[in-house]
Amino acid sequence: MKIVVDAMGGDHAPKSVIEGTIEALEYFYGFEVILVGNLNELKPYIETYRLDKNPRIKLVHAEQFVRMDESSTVSLRQKKNSSITVAASIVGDKKADALVTIGHTGAAMAATTVRMRTLPGVERPAIAVIMPSTEGKFILLDAGANVDCKPQNLAQFAVMGELYSKHVLGVRNPKIGIMSVGDEDIKGNELTKEAFKILTKMPINFIGNVEGNDMFENKADVVVCDGFVGNVVLKSCEGLSKAIQFLLKKAFMKNPIRITSAILGLKAFAELKDISDKETYGGAPLLGINGICIIGHGSSSSKAVCNAIKIAADLVEKDLNGEILKRLKESNIIVEKE
Amino acid sequence: MKIVVDAMGGDHAPKSVIEGTIEALEYFYGFEVILVGNLNELKPYIETYRLDKNPRIKLVHAEQFVRMDESSTVSLRQKKNSSITVAASIVGDKKADALVTIGHTGAAMAATTVRMRTLPGVERPAIAVIMPSTEGKFILLDAGANVDCKPQNLAQFAVMGELYSKHVLGVRNPKIGIMSVGDEDIKGNELTKEAFKILTKMPINFIGNVEGNDMFENKADVVVCDGFVGNVVLKSCEGLSKAIQFLLKKAFMKNPIRITSAILGLKAFAELKDISDKETYGGAPLLGINGICIIGHGSSSSKAVCNAIKIAADLVEKDLNGEILKRLKESNIIVEKE
Repeated sequence: MKIVVDAMGGDHAPKSVIEGTIEALEYFYGFEVILVGNLNELKPYIETYRLDKNPRIKLVHAEQFVRMDESSTVSLRQKKNSSITVAASIVGDKKADALVTIGHTGAAMAATTVRMRTLPGVERPAIAVIMPSTEGKFILLDAGANVDCKPQNLAQFAVMGELYSKHVLGVRNPKIGIMSVGDEDIKGNELTKEAFKILTKMPINFIGNVEGNDMFENKADVVVCDGFVGNVVLKSCEGLSKAIQFLLKKAFMKNPIRITSAILGLKAFAELKDISDKETYGGAPLLGINGICIIGHGSSSSKAVCNAIKIAADLVEKDLNGEILKRLKESNIIVEKE
Repeated sequence: MKIVVDAMGGDHAPKSVIEGTIEALEYFYGFEVILVGNLNELKPYIETYRLDKNPRIKLVHAEQFVRMDESSTVSLRQKKNSSITVAASIVGDKKADALVTIGHTGAAMAATTVRMRTLPGVERPAIAVIMPSTEGKFILLDAGANVDCKPQNLAQFAVMGELYSKHVLGVRNPKIGIMSVGDEDIKGNELTKEAFKILTKMPINFIGNVEGNDMFENKADVVVCDGFVGNVVLKSCEGLSKAIQFLLKKAFMKNPIRITSAILGLKAFAELKDISDKETYGGAPLLGINGICIIGHGSSSSKAVCNAIKIAADLVEKDLNGEILKRLKESNIIVEKE
């Protein structure tokens, strides 16, 4: 098994990527890594970590890389030799099984869609994110790959999310819900009402509509929505969570009694921060792409990169994509390409 | 000035509604109240508070009321004598200026749309909610009145939100943003990209796209979106906020040190709870309806009801609807009815 790792991009790259890759190779077996990046820039790391001497690492040069502040469309057209495009091409050419990047999400999506393409019968890929809830975790998808979706797309997302929930969170028979504005069948917009009809007929554990507040009470294990709604919800939740932390800090710094309270409660606050811990899952997979693809957060630490590589390897081994294709056929929601 | 108050519906009605009405009449002048409800059920309150002896209160009988668990469409068809329908008809017949209810939101929307109708040139009404942010507050609309919107609707929401922000939050030149998935002009779905073009041409302080996380950092004073997105965001934020409170409580109850910390920090936690305080604003207005309409939360206390009545009176006095019509004309976004 070969996993391509994009060494560039991200806030702490290439350091965190290289250290995470080495950690992954130390702890886990059964795969090799193809590290893609500008080898001139990587030189100090190659020397320090003797990357060129490691039989499980292959180094591939890519002249350019996409900066986090660049536009994804421009990146694809003007930077044909960027690390993400070179990395996606290696998987697209079947010379590797999976791709891990912590760079620019838009660029990763563009590069994988063009160079790796979607699975046969899958029209649109979806970004799946793991969200915290009071009793555990749930999966939200699409979190931003496709802003305008058709009902069929949502049905395919349900199948992808089901299998991701099974393989990564270990949920046996995941409850699937559609994000909507009321729990009655008739509630929703045109898109969700049509998707509701399709999901009802599929051989999945469909529980109907899920409202924004239900999500955090574990009503569903998988919540499907279009990428516009998913991205807005994801970012709103991130924003609110940050705002609450900020306001808590402010409230607790007002006087000595409160400061004492905050110090005594430090561990409790830390525990809370953990629930939204992106590190454990190393990032979000782009599901529906022909080849496993994990997109880590730009701020990923080496631990997050290590976990992203491990999850990529797991999903290859479990043949997630083979299972997605099988389930799509069983559910009769293969989309013929135009 | 006459304000119709729906005495029924809500979790603590009629008690909280009647007590809130009396408070409002005590503290504020310049208006009378028409209290609508089942007078048999209200009898004990009429006697205790001598409602029939109060020259500023008129009592109107409505046989039925819509329970919180009933469907809004059924309520409109089968309960023609419900308190909300009778109340909306009084304003629709120009016998009063404003309506306040803490009952069923869907029923209130249905009743006001049918009995009061929208303002001339306004196609769809919008629910405006006040949300907390790190530096103050902002307004999100539509929070759930219309799930499928046209770009023109969003443009009208911008004008309504602008004036509501001015009159209720006292913002001089409100910054208006469109909720979207990226801050570049080209980002968004079909709806928001079209709305973006219209808003750019309008005589408002349009700042472009706003992402979910920006909202809580006061990037905009008014954020417009369709009612599906708005409702999902609102409920997700409510759900997340509850989940965080739950998890904080759990984390702080684990051992005596943390419990001590929590006790010392009680006031800080209470302060934080206040920022999402629905009581101060008494509920959300349904903007664009021909007549002021405030829909309070089902769990409203008497304080919230009192504030809802005060805000309704303020908005009538400031002629919010007249100003909305004026601004819509200036902005050239009057929609001709079919």
